[in-house]
Amino acid sequence: MNEYLHNYKMVLMYDGTLFCGWQIQHQGISIQQTIEEAIQKITKEDVKVIGSGRTDAGVHALGQTAHFKIAKELDLYRFHYSLNALLPPEIRVKEISPAPLSFHAQYSAIRKTYRYHVSLSKTQSPFNRLYAWHFIGQADISLLKKAAGMFLGTHDFTSFANEAHRGSASKDPIRTLMRLDVVENGKEIALELEADGFLYKMVRNIVGTLFDAAIGRTPLDSIPDIFAAKDRRKAGAAAPPQGLFLLKVDY
Amino acid sequence: MNEYLHNYKMVLMYDGTLFCGWQIQHQGISIQQTIEEAIQKITKEDVKVIGSGRTDAGVHALGQTAHFKIAKELDLYRFHYSLNALLPPEIRVKEISPAPLSFHAQYSAIRKTYRYHVSLSKTQSPFNRLYAWHFIGQADISLLKKAAGMFLGTHDFTSFANEAHRGSASKDPIRTLMRLDVVENGKEIALELEADGFLYKMVRNIVGTLFDAAIGRTPLDSIPDIFAAKDRRKAGAAAPPQGLFLLKVDY
Repeated sequence: MNEYLHNYKMVLMYDGTLFCGWQIQHQGISIQQTIEEAIQKITKEDVKVIGSGRTDAGVHALGQTAHFKIAKELDLYRFHYSLNALLPPEIRVKEISPAPLSFHAQYSAIRKTYRYHVSLSKTQSPFNRLYAWHFIGQADISLLKKAAGMFLGTHDFTSFANEAHRGSASKDPIRTLMRLDVVENGKEIALELEADGFLYKMVRNIVGTLFDAAIGRTPLDSIPDIFAAKDRRKAGAAAPPQGLFLLKVDY
Repeated sequence: MNEYLHNYKMVLMYDGTLFCGWQIQHQGISIQQTIEEAIQKITKEDVKVIGSGRTDAGVHALGQTAHFKIAKELDLYRFHYSLNALLPPEIRVKEISPAPLSFHAQYSAIRKTYRYHVSLSKTQSPFNRLYAWHFIGQADISLLKKAAGMFLGTHDFTSFANEAHRGSASKDPIRTLMRLDVVENGKEIALELEADGFLYKMVRNIVGTLFDAAIGRTPLDSIPDIFAAKDRRKAGAAAPPQGLFLLKVDY
């Protein structure tokens, strides 16, 4: 058995389009596995890469964080270069730095920020088809903003969480959403969500429900009832994966 | 033989990554051919789609313009919808409108605008690897801007034009560049070029030469000599295709 003397923290960007998600699965190629194999090729050590949390197939990252422990010390300048050279261009290591052995990408995280892109344009641009939800309905942005305000603060988010797969960590459904900004840029809408943590599929379920509110399918005054029901079936369908970007993990 | 009684003008967006370029070629699938086949499927007429000019493999468009002539009148609302439904998501028809029979997407054009994206970031983002030139050298942006100014106005651009393929139209190498803006956004640089017309590969050859100037490989005072030589070999190598976007064609 290896004795791990060094711990390294990485900040990662990836285009999730062609992957089965962050986590190793039976089918498809995962981002985690792709990075582990590249590190093993360089270090000749058996390495396990732990992310701040999984992202689903098609979900992207501009600032996913991960750590790995290893016996030998790395020359980080060379290692960073070699790793990006071995990885496919869909995955880039932005930063790599030494971390205390106690640092854990998932358990040490205190805050996460996601951004979700929606395009309301009549004709979907070929350039955001893999990076935004092309929303067809007549969305009322002032309703969307009002609904967004109702998600702020500390809530039991059970109604906005899918059943996590086996091996998932957290059971506590209470989360604090510190920020849910709706940023308009013409027909392109970005929603930024910042919380002390997110349950499985929580961002996409919130975004789906917000757009149900924006088209009048879900009345604003029913949102407190959806929270109170603690029942996933009461909230809207999940927004599709390709609009979602993990922006930042704070420690 | 068909008698063409109707002429339609289209404004197109496309992601050129997976195509052999605008023009029908022996190898690969062209954008022109993809659009012609979709129109023929709807109209059951043999249709020829004429673009404002070709774009090379990997080059993108936010506002390419094309026309086609046809015997029967089209219900444009339905046709627009059906055409986008048949086309792959990499190609979108933004607008379609009736045009006089005399309208010709190439010969009636009076001005074109291109944008070229360059990323100077240390680590290339997975999200612009297909949409920008990742430039590795130490570019001096003030030098780049000074060099850009030397291309403005009316010149013989022979040194910045590749030999066009057979069937190409124009022989006159004199063009007027009305605008060459360098727009900085952090490490992302966009160059916008507006001219009464562009020779084959002219934008990419100018951008390549500008970056040669920006790293000091091409002294500014040699640029008038490059123009005067009327020799393609005197200018810099072409910048790669994926950074180039055809923005707009004016008539």
